[in-house]
Amino acid sequence: MHMPSFIQTKRDGRPHDDADLRAFVDGIVSGDIPDYQTAAWLMAVVFQGLSDAETATLASAMTDSGDRLDLSDLPHTVDKHSTGGVGDKTTLILAPLLAELGGTVAKMSGRGLGHTGGTIDKLESIAGFNVTLDEAAFLKQAADVGVVVAGASKRLAPADGKLYALRDATATVKSLPLIASSIMSKKLAGGAKSLVLDVKVGQGAFMKTVPEAVQLGRMMQAIGEREGRNVAVVLTDMDQPLGLAVGNASEVLEAIQVLQGSGPPDVREVVVRLAREVLTQSGLPASERDIRAALDDGRAYARFERWVAAQGGRLTDETSLALSPDTWMLTAPRDGVVANIDALAVGEAVRRLGGGRSRKDDAVDHGVGVDLHVKVGGRTGQGEPLATVRHRGGRGLEDAQRMLAGAFVLDDQAAERPVLLEVS
Amino acid sequence: MHMPSFIQTKRDGRPHDDADLRAFVDGIVSGDIPDYQTAAWLMAVVFQGLSDAETATLASAMTDSGDRLDLSDLPHTVDKHSTGGVGDKTTLILAPLLAELGGTVAKMSGRGLGHTGGTIDKLESIAGFNVTLDEAAFLKQAADVGVVVAGASKRLAPADGKLYALRDATATVKSLPLIASSIMSKKLAGGAKSLVLDVKVGQGAFMKTVPEAVQLGRMMQAIGEREGRNVAVVLTDMDQPLGLAVGNASEVLEAIQVLQGSGPPDVREVVVRLAREVLTQSGLPASERDIRAALDDGRAYARFERWVAAQGGRLTDETSLALSPDTWMLTAPRDGVVANIDALAVGEAVRRLGGGRSRKDDAVDHGVGVDLHVKVGGRTGQGEPLATVRHRGGRGLEDAQRMLAGAFVLDDQAAERPVLLEVS
Repeated sequence: MHMPSFIQTKRDGRPHDDADLRAFVDGIVSGDIPDYQTAAWLMAVVFQGLSDAETATLASAMTDSGDRLDLSDLPHTVDKHSTGGVGDKTTLILAPLLAELGGTVAKMSGRGLGHTGGTIDKLESIAGFNVTLDEAAFLKQAADVGVVVAGASKRLAPADGKLYALRDATATVKSLPLIASSIMSKKLAGGAKSLVLDVKVGQGAFMKTVPEAVQLGRMMQAIGEREGRNVAVVLTDMDQPLGLAVGNASEVLEAIQVLQGSGPPDVREVVVRLAREVLTQSGLPASERDIRAALDDGRAYARFERWVAAQGGRLTDETSLALSPDTWMLTAPRDGVVANIDALAVGEAVRRLGGGRSRKDDAVDHGVGVDLHVKVGGRTGQGEPLATVRHRGGRGLEDAQRMLAGAFVLDDQAAERPVLLEVS
Repeated sequence: MHMPSFIQTKRDGRPHDDADLRAFVDGIVSGDIPDYQTAAWLMAVVFQGLSDAETATLASAMTDSGDRLDLSDLPHTVDKHSTGGVGDKTTLILAPLLAELGGTVAKMSGRGLGHTGGTIDKLESIAGFNVTLDEAAFLKQAADVGVVVAGASKRLAPADGKLYALRDATATVKSLPLIASSIMSKKLAGGAKSLVLDVKVGQGAFMKTVPEAVQLGRMMQAIGEREGRNVAVVLTDMDQPLGLAVGNASEVLEAIQVLQGSGPPDVREVVVRLAREVLTQSGLPASERDIRAALDDGRAYARFERWVAAQGGRLTDETSLALSPDTWMLTAPRDGVVANIDALAVGEAVRRLGGGRSRKDDAVDHGVGVDLHVKVGGRTGQGEPLATVRHRGGRGLEDAQRMLAGAFVLDDQAAERPVLLEVS
């Protein structure tokens, strides 16, 4: 394939042949195509877009660039993907809940960059939790316990890894077909038959508006369906953080609360909706009532305990979820109602505290974070706590204080904000 | 400078700061900025363009990335640039003509890619002609003879060389501000005070339409004027080749004809117009009549002989401009008038014959080429010659035959086509 012509095709807004797109992805992985040609193509896509057919072919080719996890021997394989939010601990709750309701959750997960760590990092907050499983152990646990989450032991969509690194360095992340194909290439490789995609919308999310989130969801659905997957899309709010806890260990603790039938209502609502959608896709229709019951009667938590134990985690250990003892309190400068909590600012504060990564090889401090005391719509009084900042010996504290001070907006009145936005 | 932000600025159509643009060019030359980031930026520019101020800053920064030739001790320094056409031998004629009329032509030239070689290659068709001069010899000849053309002995706009190679590989050549800044960075480095830019328009040129050629000319003029140069722009036709000769040695022979007062009228008209414009810019206004006189009375040719001799060329040698003896004749398949001669096809035919370069290190065969026997508007009869193909032992002949067969369009009637399109 003549790469300048391939780039020119997209530059001029013409469609790619399937064979060319696949040769392109092969060339990225083999290293035959230099990064500068890929980068030019990426920028052309930012401007010209990709058709649904091209996006699906790209995703499929990226999936085929590595291994596909074979989950076909497992019943009702289900998976969830979130486009990334602050305080999003839903996987920790949803995984055992879905297993308890008849699904199989067998998830290979990356660490990724982010304000807090990814699911793998959060699980590693639990003392002893082992995320390094070979494929046989992974599949056996999926069959035995119904839930397993491990670091990727297989080469899942390596083309996506290469493309993503390049997009990050060339201001070409922001393109719906590139986002959709990136996410879906990993989901397709992950092997689950039914998927629910939690598209976050708001100032703390990649998608700032409902229309673009709807479009992204539609694209991802189209890709999944072309590959024979059942895909539901749920839009949820990410103007403010999800729940109250932001930070790895702290989020695990909040997840446990929800698994035990309590916890912040917004987290519970998102979990219940995601569960309902993906179970329906999977042919295991469960009513909201059934799902809430599994949380309220302790079954979901019992499954969580089995899961954690199967991967070596020790929940009973007093120090198992050790939060840093160093805290600082942000208090309200006036009486009022919380009109806004900038999720991005809270997330960035936690990253500065050491709770997330800026570079791939950064270590994550599980014990730091920010715990909110109020949410949007909540009333507060002058001097009352807005958030507890959990730092480690003052590291990043000044940055975090500055960011949080700007994150809270108090007003004389403000409405609560719904967390569920739209389902398709 | 944070490169992803720099790229994003242009992606989003916002203007760059001067300092950022200059830091960008510095980073390209130092190698600090990886090619993939430059490539993404180039594609963003294809879509978002650059303002006149940005284009001028970019050109100036590219010029400053290398040496600037100091011609300030020479009187009335003049230069010409052509955007590239098939059969364009005007520099060979214009250089001694301008010198004869009071200008100084001190030109450092690259070899470049192209259907035929560049001016340097054409000069090397002349036995003994030496294009390798050091700066002192170059400047001395400029002062003594009024005309010198040599290969670049200095680092002229190295940023442009890097950018151009990348543009060529990433389908980002086609952007008016990138073309304008590329051309002008070399012209600014070249040091001449007054310039005439010959913007070719038509199927054989990079600019396909008059409006885009006008826009390119305007951009280049703006860049030059910001740097205190006098710049005239002339638009000339490149639907059909210029003159009759296409091929290195053959073009030198045709140039000599024009220098001796004969030769194809279109070549002469372009030369006269370019001369008039640049002499006017230089404060040496010459009437068309004066210019024609210098061609007709032998003065221009005498200056050409002095120039060639100064650089070691032997024009009197019988074999000095050896054309290949292997010829093949394209004849007219019917009676009619020539309605079109596809310049690009003729150029590509000559390249296939070995007369031009596809890669930088290709050798050029000076003796091959295509000599036209008619031009658009000319009448021909079945079996009469349309073109003589001069090949070397059959190399590339079949390709050339096929291309030329498609290049000529005969009709029942057709008008001659003017070569001068617009002057600004």
